[in-house]
Amino acid sequence: MKQILLIGIGAGDPDYVTIQAVKALNRVDVFFVLDKGEVKQDLVDVRQEILDRHVDRPYRVVEARDPERDRTAPAYAEAVHDWRRRRADVCEELIRAELADGQTGAFLVWGDPALYDSTLAIIEDILARGAVEFDYEVVPGITSVQALVAKHRTSLNRVGRPVQITTGRRLAEGFPEDVDDVVVMLDAHNSFTGVGDDVQVYWGAYVGTPDELLISGTVGEVGEQIVATRAEARERKGWIMDTYLLRRKP
Amino acid sequence: MKQILLIGIGAGDPDYVTIQAVKALNRVDVFFVLDKGEVKQDLVDVRQEILDRHVDRPYRVVEARDPERDRTAPAYAEAVHDWRRRRADVCEELIRAELADGQTGAFLVWGDPALYDSTLAIIEDILARGAVEFDYEVVPGITSVQALVAKHRTSLNRVGRPVQITTGRRLAEGFPEDVDDVVVMLDAHNSFTGVGDDVQVYWGAYVGTPDELLISGTVGEVGEQIVATRAEARERKGWIMDTYLLRRKP
Repeated sequence: MKQILLIGIGAGDPDYVTIQAVKALNRVDVFFVLDKGEVKQDLVDVRQEILDRHVDRPYRVVEARDPERDRTAPAYAEAVHDWRRRRADVCEELIRAELADGQTGAFLVWGDPALYDSTLAIIEDILARGAVEFDYEVVPGITSVQALVAKHRTSLNRVGRPVQITTGRRLAEGFPEDVDDVVVMLDAHNSFTGVGDDVQVYWGAYVGTPDELLISGTVGEVGEQIVATRAEARERKGWIMDTYLLRRKP
Repeated sequence: MKQILLIGIGAGDPDYVTIQAVKALNRVDVFFVLDKGEVKQDLVDVRQEILDRHVDRPYRVVEARDPERDRTAPAYAEAVHDWRRRRADVCEELIRAELADGQTGAFLVWGDPALYDSTLAIIEDILARGAVEFDYEVVPGITSVQALVAKHRTSLNRVGRPVQITTGRRLAEGFPEDVDDVVVMLDAHNSFTGVGDDVQVYWGAYVGTPDELLISGTVGEVGEQIVATRAEARERKGWIMDTYLLRRKP
């Protein structure tokens, strides 16, 4: 039987990696790497640093080109599903051709494979197709959400109250019902500017890396500063990874 | 200046500890331990195992009795606030009397200090009182929520959709609005039994430990099995730590 590991390697700081992940990395014969056309060299370097520092056995790295996702499609979920299907084609071929029976292959995932990452669904899709057989395990990792609030030294939830994790797209449709603490991921359009001036925002970009940026205050106080800082950072580095927590008065 | 570290040590498996946490543990002169009357020996053992395995410098452990919380009070938030105030009294005295200027003290937190844990708020309360001065840092850790979904090999969210983390008390008031994936913590009353038979439930207790229990299926299929398993485990071990994810059709 082939074995696949989905290993969360944390978000940003290579020290976010867990002992469990280090042990998993040291079981791996082949690392599968899917990189996008616009490869973020900083991220590739962090990933390589984690392998260099923690793996003390021989391994192979097999790279494949990640299919492009149509980011202009109006039907978001459908576009993602189509992209997943093409990613599953690529991953199925990697597992079939590059991994022998009895060997262990791994996909390294930024943050945690359980939060806004498609690798787990792709692995399930490949298994459901039935063309290749393998068993798999998931290793959790520190998410960008946890890195964000740790650096801001604040909690995700308040006493006995809920917290919701959502997307910029959904926030743009309105502040979620019945919840006053909301973490927003994948927001390319500064949707926090529409939630009201007295909402507290804890924003961070590249958290846990040398480029880390942190801003907090009410949207009225720091909203424009975040918009400007975000645009400047994106321009300077060519990409941005940011997240924020919104905290509304109950 | 005194330095305080709030270190998330993960939930259950000692291998959930991160490299960042290991480095933080090795900066500590004094570990502050607040244990409840009904000390869970298994948890104390895991904590000690983490220190034994990863700390290679001399340290002191100072234990104090955790104030009792009034679990019968109807006003939940007020009871927790009152308990926090008394915990802050105890922690303030520990930091004042047991830590010298220039030394580093630490509180070890199960899971992540940002999620359903009061230590961060207590530290902020003590600083606001102004009687002792110190600086502090937060180190994130793998939560029981992440451990749960990794073992069930499922995601927290579906494509482009939100996930909410809430309490058993709140779920008992109804399934949250506008969200179909809900993680429930601190549920002593099997509130999942009221959400509808066709809702998917991924339940786990003592996840990441040798006592780990995992059950999944629809509430109609496995609801009674979870209630019975939970009662039996609680009776056998004297305590239970469990969490679950509910997944409703959109």
